Formats: sequence, C-alpha cells, structure tokens
Amino acid sequence: MSAGIIRGVRVAAAAAGIRYHDRDDLVVMALPDGACCAAVFTRNAFQAAPVTIARAHLGAAPARFLLINAGNANAGTGSRGLADARACCAALAAEAGCSPEQVLPFSTGVIGEYLPVERITGALPALLAALREDGWDAAARSIMTTDTVPKRATRTFRLGERTATVTGIAKGAGMIRPDMATMLAFLATDAAVDPGLLQTCLEQAVAGSFNAISIDGDTSTNDACVLAAAGTLGNPTIDASMAEESAALTVAVTEVCEALATAIVADGEGATKLVSIEVAEAADAAEARRVADTIAHSPLVKTALFAADPNWGRILAAVGRAGVDDLHIDGVRIWLDDVRIVANGGRDPDYTEEAGRRVMAQGRFRIRVALGRGDARGRVLTCDLSYDYVRINAEYRT
Amino acid sequence: MSAGIIRGVRVAAAAAGIRYHDRDDLVVMALPDGACCAAVFTRNAFQAAPVTIARAHLGAAPARFLLINAGNANAGTGSRGLADARACCAALAAEAGCSPEQVLPFSTGVIGEYLPVERITGALPALLAALREDGWDAAARSIMTTDTVPKRATRTFRLGERTATVTGIAKGAGMIRPDMATMLAFLATDAAVDPGLLQTCLEQAVAGSFNAISIDGDTSTNDACVLAAAGTLGNPTIDASMAEESAALTVAVTEVCEALATAIVADGEGATKLVSIEVAEAADAAEARRVADTIAHSPLVKTALFAADPNWGRILAAVGRAGVDDLHIDGVRIWLDDVRIVANGGRDPDYTEEAGRRVMAQGRFRIRVALGRGDARGRVLTCDLSYDYVRINAEYRT
Repeated sequence: MSAGIIRGVRVAAAAAGIRYHDRDDLVVMALPDGACCAAVFTRNAFQAAPVTIARAHLGAAPARFLLINAGNANAGTGSRGLADARACCAALAAEAGCSPEQVLPFSTGVIGEYLPVERITGALPALLAALREDGWDAAARSIMTTDTVPKRATRTFRLGERTATVTGIAKGAGMIRPDMATMLAFLATDAAVDPGLLQTCLEQAVAGSFNAISIDGDTSTNDACVLAAAGTLGNPTIDASMAEESAALTVAVTEVCEALATAIVADGEGATKLVSIEVAEAADAAEARRVADTIAHSPLVKTALFAADPNWGRILAAVGRAGVDDLHIDGVRIWLDDVRIVANGGRDPDYTEEAGRRVMAQGRFRIRVALGRGDARGRVLTCDLSYDYVRINAEYRT
Repeated sequence: MSAGIIRGVRVAAAAAGIRYHDRDDLVVMALPDGACCAAVFTRNAFQAAPVTIARAHLGAAPARFLLINAGNANAGTGSRGLADARACCAALAAEAGCSPEQVLPFSTGVIGEYLPVERITGALPALLAALREDGWDAAARSIMTTDTVPKRATRTFRLGERTATVTGIAKGAGMIRPDMATMLAFLATDAAVDPGLLQTCLEQAVAGSFNAISIDGDTSTNDACVLAAAGTLGNPTIDASMAEESAALTVAVTEVCEALATAIVADGEGATKLVSIEVAEAADAAEARRVADTIAHSPLVKTALFAADPNWGRILAAVGRAGVDDLHIDGVRIWLDDVRIVANGGRDPDYTEEAGRRVMAQGRFRIRVALGRGDARGRVLTCDLSYDYVRINAEYRT
C-alpha cells in the first residue's frame, strides 16, 4: 500500500468548471462507517455559508462525505448561499444514499459570488464512481487557488504492534492569518479514536501550527480544518485515559499540521522568504504573541525581508508600537538567527551589517526578540511582502 | 506681506549633507521672545533621541529654536544618540546666545545610524544668518524623505479687528500610523495664546487629523507635532475663558492639521488612491476606529484599491475579523461612496459591478460601513498598496 494511504478513506477529484478551466476544482472525500470527525473553523464574524452548514451538520450526524470546491468561497452570499450549500449536500446525499447531514461542505475562492450549484451537482455521479484510497495527491492539487504547489504531509506512530498513519492536505496562500483553523486542511488517520479526544488533539495541534502563521494578517471567512479518524486500523479505540497512545497521536497530528502550515507560508502569495518570528521573555503568552504579530504584519518589516535588507530599525519600531505597557527599551534584545543586532535600546556594538546581510540572504531564518519582562514565549511564522504579492492580489479577480 | 507668513517666526534651510546630496536637509526655525509652544509626540515605546530631548527641553524653558534634520532619525542609537542630540542643541545655543534647553531637536530618516553631528553644527552659523519670515516653503522641502511633494497649509481667523494666521508644514510618506502626532509637523500662529489652551487646541486638532491617517500601520519612533504661538499679532492673549476666540483658533489649527494630514496620505509611499474609511453605527468610538483601522491596514483591501477592483468581499472579511463582539452580520451595510454593495450579510441585490468600478476609478473616494449596533462613528484616511510601495521600501536604504 502506498505511503500515506488511510485505509477506508477514499478521495476523488474532478473538473467542474466552477471558476477554472483545464483543471480539477471539486473534491469528494468519503469516510468509512464508524469513522468520527473533529473540526475547527474560522472565527471571522462573516462566516461563509459552507462553514455555517458544516458546523450544523457535524453536530447532527456522523459525517460520511466531505465536499470541497475551489474557485468560489460561497461567502457574503446571504440566505441564497446557505441554500446553495445545502443543495449541494442534498444532491451528494441522494446520489450516495445517506442523509444530507452526513455531508460536510467546504469552499474556497472568490468572496461574494453565488455558487454554480448545477455544475457541482452535475459532477457528483462521476466523482463518487472514482473514489479511491490513493486520491490524496489529486485532491491536494484540486483545492489550490493562488497556491503554487500542492500541500500534503504524512506521519506514522506506533500503537502496540500496529503502525498508525496520519495524512493531511491543505491549501492557502493569501488571506492567511488563521484564527482557530487554516484556510482549508483535511487530515485523516486510520486509528480508532474517541471523538472527544480527537477534537482535543486537533485543537492542540492547530494552536501551534495553523494558528501561528500569517501571510498578510487577513483572517479568511472560510477557514476550516477537519481531522477524521477512520477506525480501520483495528486498534483498541484511543481515549483520554490512554496517555501513551494519546500522546503519540497528538505528536503525529501536530507534526502533520506543522508541515502543512509551514508549506502554506512558504507558498505565501509572492513569498521569497520564510521567517520565524520568535518572542521570548514576555510577561505573558498574549503579550509575546502580540509583539510577534506586530512584527509579522508590519509592511515595512516585510518589504525589508523581501530586500534581504537588515533594516533592524523597522523591527525595533514594530516592537515599540506593539502596545506593551511600560516597556523598558534597555531590556530589549533582537537577533537575526544568532547575530545580535539590538541591545540596551540601540545597536549592539559588535553587530556588523555584513553579519546581518548573511542571515537575511538565506531563504529561511529567524527574527528573535527578548523583552526582558518575564518568561513567556510566542512564535509566528511569516513571509515577506514582494512585488508579486501586490501583482497577485491586484489581478486576482480580473 | 506674503500669505502664510507668521510675523516674528523666521525659518532657514541648508544642505548639511546628512544623507542626501544636492538638496537642503537641515532647518532652523526661530521663535520671537514671548512665544509659547505646544507639542505632541509619538507613543512608540522606542522613542527617538530627539523626541526624548525635545520633551525634556519643552518642560525646562521657553523654546526659541527648532532644529530639524532629514535623512537620519537618530533613533535606536542609545546613549550616544541622546548625547548627539544634546550636542546639536548646545552648538545652536552657543551660536545664538540662548540656553541649550531653549532649542528643540527633531530628526527624521533612517533608524539606527548615528547623527553626523559635525556636519550639522558646521552648517549652523550660515543657517542662523539666513533666517527669514518667508522661509516656510524651503523648510517644507528640506524635511522631506520619501515624500514626493512638500506639504504646507495656511488658514486665517478673525480676532476682533485683527486677522490671525496659522501656518504649518509637515513631512511623512511611510511608517505612517501616527499615535498622538504625525511624523513631523510644525505649525505657528501670530496670535498670542495661553500655553494651556494652546496644548489643548493642538491635541484636539491632532486627534481628528494626524491621528486619523494611516499609510502602512507602522507608527514611527520620531513622530512629533509642534504648534508655536508667536504672540506678534498684538491681540489680547486668548485663553480658555474666551469661547469665541478659542473656537476660531481651534478651527483654524484643525483645518491646517487636516490639510497637512491629507497631503501626507495623498503622498503615501507609492499611493495612487486616497480613501476615507468611515464607520458608523458602532457601539462606541473605539469599536468604530478598530473596524476602520482593520480595513485600512488589510493588505488585501489595499491591493484591491490599487487595482480599482471593487472586491468588496475583502472589505467584508476585514470587518468580520476586526474583533467586534457578537457582530450580527445581517445588520452590516457597506457602501463605496453612495453605492451600496452589502446589505443583510450579503451583496445588495441592486448592486452592479459597473457601479462599484466607477467609484473606484476615482482618485479619491469613501468606503462607508454601518454596523447597526449604536451611534458612534470613526474615520481613518488611508491609501492603496502598490508595486511602488514595495519598491520604495525594498530600496530605501540601498
């Protein structure tokens, strides 16, 4: 069996012509009987219609199908958008012989246009006929919008004598500052897992991965991340009382989420640099994250990253405006990787521009800030702001 | 006498070679005996050395000279930066025969480099000899960094039989999201004004002008705005008990600040559009401002503005992530000028893409949002995000 396959989880993709031509843009994922699903969704107040419907369906029945389209977000579409999402679920349910509540809809693409329902429902019979366990790569390609590469990751973990697998796919390159989920990510494991533990595991994994990345600070209306436990491995169901197995599951899910989240930032719209902003010695975790976010969202810092210019004054100015009460600037230090550039509120006497340039010439590096206020830490993964970000987002609809 | 001159206030500019060549980059402004000064400064925790020194000097003695340089911010320069700013003040004081505390220093330019003190002090004798009442335009040109046009504004107001004048200059095109002041702005009036009233008047004027603009969301380390009352008009000193005169003064100062603030955004780095973000029906003023700021700082909204693309889904997504508790999206409406695009949580049925494009084709327009939660309002003036913003900020130091 190919690496990354989850026994009993079948996937298919097709070209429904939703927005793109000459490429697949519609995916169905089928889960076996006995599978359970955990999910997290965007906290944007304007939730897309499919987010509203998927939430409702998740609470009503065990999910059997995920229906995912690219090219149209079905967001900002009011009551018609809800009806359209429901119609797609009902059509799939009728074709597959399950209830509409057992279908979860997901959409990504342009906001504010109505979903071409008939093109989607018309593609369903062939899609259901094409479902197969090794369809993950085709699915990862089909959910792309401004992504330039498909994103997929797999990890395994031991459960007694058995080897369990976690596989996930994700998409996202712009409007990326996930809040409790990413743009769209779908993970599955063959292990049997208690539903409560599955949700906890997903929330933990998402907190340090998808929720700790930012491309442009814009939280999407459509963020969703789903983790399905197929239960096809034959293991005793993992529950919260099984410390070792729970930990192994959480590590594997977290690593898959981290790999996908990193792939999203590395493929950020126009991105040429992958930069980890790491803040230490904060008074609390919220403060650390606020400082990291302020640096990560500063257009001046992001254009300096693009230029590979160690213009550290922009980092310092971002720290200074991050809203930290009573910040004593003499206690602040800033590093590029291990090169210290700021100490005692000014340039480190040993710092040289050449050393800074060497770090920033790399494709991946860290900006580290120590605030001198406590022992809390925070981290956010971000990218630079390039001409191509402007081009992609000035041209996206036209 | 030329329009905009403030009797007794003399200004001169010179080329000190601080960073630029073939242009003036150093300004001295001299105030007459009896003048008083009000000022507001950046709230960035990393305050530049001249901000620290100017604050201290303002509290110690009546200001007689403002010393302003472009090309070097003297920020992030630690104790040496403070000593450098003090040395410049002392040199001017020695040359002019006043105390160093009567000199206020201001700097703008690259962060993190030491001030070339000798080039500044070497230019002072000729500068003092060149002081003249009609030097404002030369000063406005000399304080520019990435600005493409000088910014100057004048208003007059009646004081009994007399006509008083308020004139101001400002600079700023990037790292612009002022917090209690703008990048650098200098205003003067010939009226005699009580110092307490002068400060109140300046703070009111700044709140609705310089503090309500944003180019890139980055608050500078060097923001400062000074209002000098020369007292050369011969009017009875205006104090808080004189309602009519106080109001006339405040209107004139506010209008000068608004004109300068608008000129700063219109000259934003790479800007091609000047857009007023106006939020109404908020629960309180802070909420209104937060929503306006979120829209104004969204890279996706700003690139859509650059493309003149009425991609209103990005505006809606920004409203949704602005952190408004319990936002009922059905109550939200969004307009481009007077074209309603969003109602009841989705696209207005009467909205047409052509109508949206017509508004966004203009050089100046409004994005209006009604939240349906109360009667508080907020407004921020911003610009688009273009290729040239990236180019200017990727190339600035190199």
